[in-house]
Amino acid sequence: MQNRQIVIVSLPTDKLDASHFDMRTVPMPEPGDGEVLCRTLALTVGAGQRAGLQGSASYAAAPKSGVVMGGTAVARIDASNADGLDVGTLVTCPSGWQDYAVHKAGAVHVVEAGGDPAHNLGVYGTNGLTAYFGLFDLGEPKAGQNVVVSAAAGSVGHIVGQMAKIAGCRVVGVAGSDEKCHLLTDDLGFDTAVNYKSPDFRQEFRDACSDGIDIYFDNTGGEVLGGALRRMKPHGRIVCCGVVSQYDTGNPAPGPRGIPGLLVNNRIRMEGFLVFDYADRYGEARTKMREWVESGKLKPLQDEFHGLEEAPRAFIDMLAGGNVGTRIIRVAE
Amino acid sequence: MQNRQIVIVSLPTDKLDASHFDMRTVPMPEPGDGEVLCRTLALTVGAGQRAGLQGSASYAAAPKSGVVMGGTAVARIDASNADGLDVGTLVTCPSGWQDYAVHKAGAVHVVEAGGDPAHNLGVYGTNGLTAYFGLFDLGEPKAGQNVVVSAAAGSVGHIVGQMAKIAGCRVVGVAGSDEKCHLLTDDLGFDTAVNYKSPDFRQEFRDACSDGIDIYFDNTGGEVLGGALRRMKPHGRIVCCGVVSQYDTGNPAPGPRGIPGLLVNNRIRMEGFLVFDYADRYGEARTKMREWVESGKLKPLQDEFHGLEEAPRAFIDMLAGGNVGTRIIRVAE
Repeated sequence: MQNRQIVIVSLPTDKLDASHFDMRTVPMPEPGDGEVLCRTLALTVGAGQRAGLQGSASYAAAPKSGVVMGGTAVARIDASNADGLDVGTLVTCPSGWQDYAVHKAGAVHVVEAGGDPAHNLGVYGTNGLTAYFGLFDLGEPKAGQNVVVSAAAGSVGHIVGQMAKIAGCRVVGVAGSDEKCHLLTDDLGFDTAVNYKSPDFRQEFRDACSDGIDIYFDNTGGEVLGGALRRMKPHGRIVCCGVVSQYDTGNPAPGPRGIPGLLVNNRIRMEGFLVFDYADRYGEARTKMREWVESGKLKPLQDEFHGLEEAPRAFIDMLAGGNVGTRIIRVAE
Repeated sequence: MQNRQIVIVSLPTDKLDASHFDMRTVPMPEPGDGEVLCRTLALTVGAGQRAGLQGSASYAAAPKSGVVMGGTAVARIDASNADGLDVGTLVTCPSGWQDYAVHKAGAVHVVEAGGDPAHNLGVYGTNGLTAYFGLFDLGEPKAGQNVVVSAAAGSVGHIVGQMAKIAGCRVVGVAGSDEKCHLLTDDLGFDTAVNYKSPDFRQEFRDACSDGIDIYFDNTGGEVLGGALRRMKPHGRIVCCGVVSQYDTGNPAPGPRGIPGLLVNNRIRMEGFLVFDYADRYGEARTKMREWVESGKLKPLQDEFHGLEEAPRAFIDMLAGGNVGTRIIRVAE
């Protein structure tokens, strides 16, 4: 038995492409005492992982070349030397891009059986938790307020917008195609959506936000952040979740004009967060989200690639805005 | 009897200079029913007033040309048609740059007699209140934390730094001359101070902040903000109080690089405020500050010009960083 792995062969200095990755085959790992062997069933990829490849100014330490590309998996325990973790149990684990991985018992999290296991990488995983704590803890939405979400059809954004609707807000999504915009308004209940690639984007965004913005949930940074800043209402909140416009480049843009002046004049709070800081409250969030999903108020979206070898393409395409909802790579049944 | 006024003759499009102002003499105003005639004793000027002349993106509506330059005064009531406001009472009022002004009773605030009346424009006025609410409400200082203040010898900054010392913090001031830096460390108890005009500023600032920054109290924006951003500790707070580096120019700089990426990675909160939002808590703040001033823990600084006709020069010089503490223009005894 052998294990397939996708490794980083060089770090990108500008745009990421397939040449930065390679597949290799290595002997199957064996679990030691207190360890389990995990069979990867599905992987997810997120824009934040591109930040991790940047090396500098990132919360994730830069990987060295020659190592397995990182990432969260949902997996089945195929062999166990750990008490309480039986063969066949479903877990999430930081396996990265490979068929099998060995983990210490403390590094895996048992997930509820039933339903699509990949949901544990999306709405009940980091994406859903990020949406939940960012919106409710930092954004503090109140019924009737105006919420704008960038990368609104993305893995986090599509959940944020639906949660803001559940909170009684008026929700504007910003996305990268007319098709995504229709999906947001027709299927997910957003009040309106604006395509940032439209030649009339500035005017369309102004029109969509003519009453001002109470909460801007920022997944992108860059130009959309600049536009939102100028339309924030006094005492508005900008939730800084990600900077997808700046990850896949060697030359990040300067910060938006008007910082800090507009923050002062309009008494705006702009705050960054990482979901890991909320680990002791994941249970609370998952309980709420399960309620919403099961009652049909929250529709989690995922789009899928099939086969471990597709992981680089799935990742690169996502960085170019190709995904709708959580991007999943199915590796095994 | 006549009244001297300094009026704005044209709005600056780039740097402000004396040609934007003119003095005129008009008949003495007379108080109507419920009004008082106020004799200006002293005026203060602050960098925020330059923002008011910008017209756009400012909390203060742009004045038209031909109007009296605005500003807060401490004044003596010389004639009164208002119940409860006797001749001789000391008040603060929005008189602007003139010898006399008529106000409705509701527009003046009686101040405590005793001591230098000009203190009501400094430590017990907007400057002190701004320092207090910005530092304690937004900054949330805890003993042992590292606090950095820009424009640290300025009207707000010199109070912020001393309050942070009272809260048990380690305090670094950033100021525009070696003389100011010595004043901060030798007279006001700052732990260290860095001259941003030094050719080695970047290195000196890095050294002064080698343990990271918990709270950055930003009066300047621009390059100092950019430098502080890169040195913020996780969960640090940036208190956005003013943008003095950007007021006196027609061409404001772009925002600092790393926004919003650094805010996300380090979970930083960056928040703007205006002191007027705290009006119902001014009493609380003044009580504390009187205690500190009277016990010698807080030394309010002011520097002075003499004569109404000096107001434009006092203002322009302050925008160039000429002031130490609160800049006061003495108009009458």
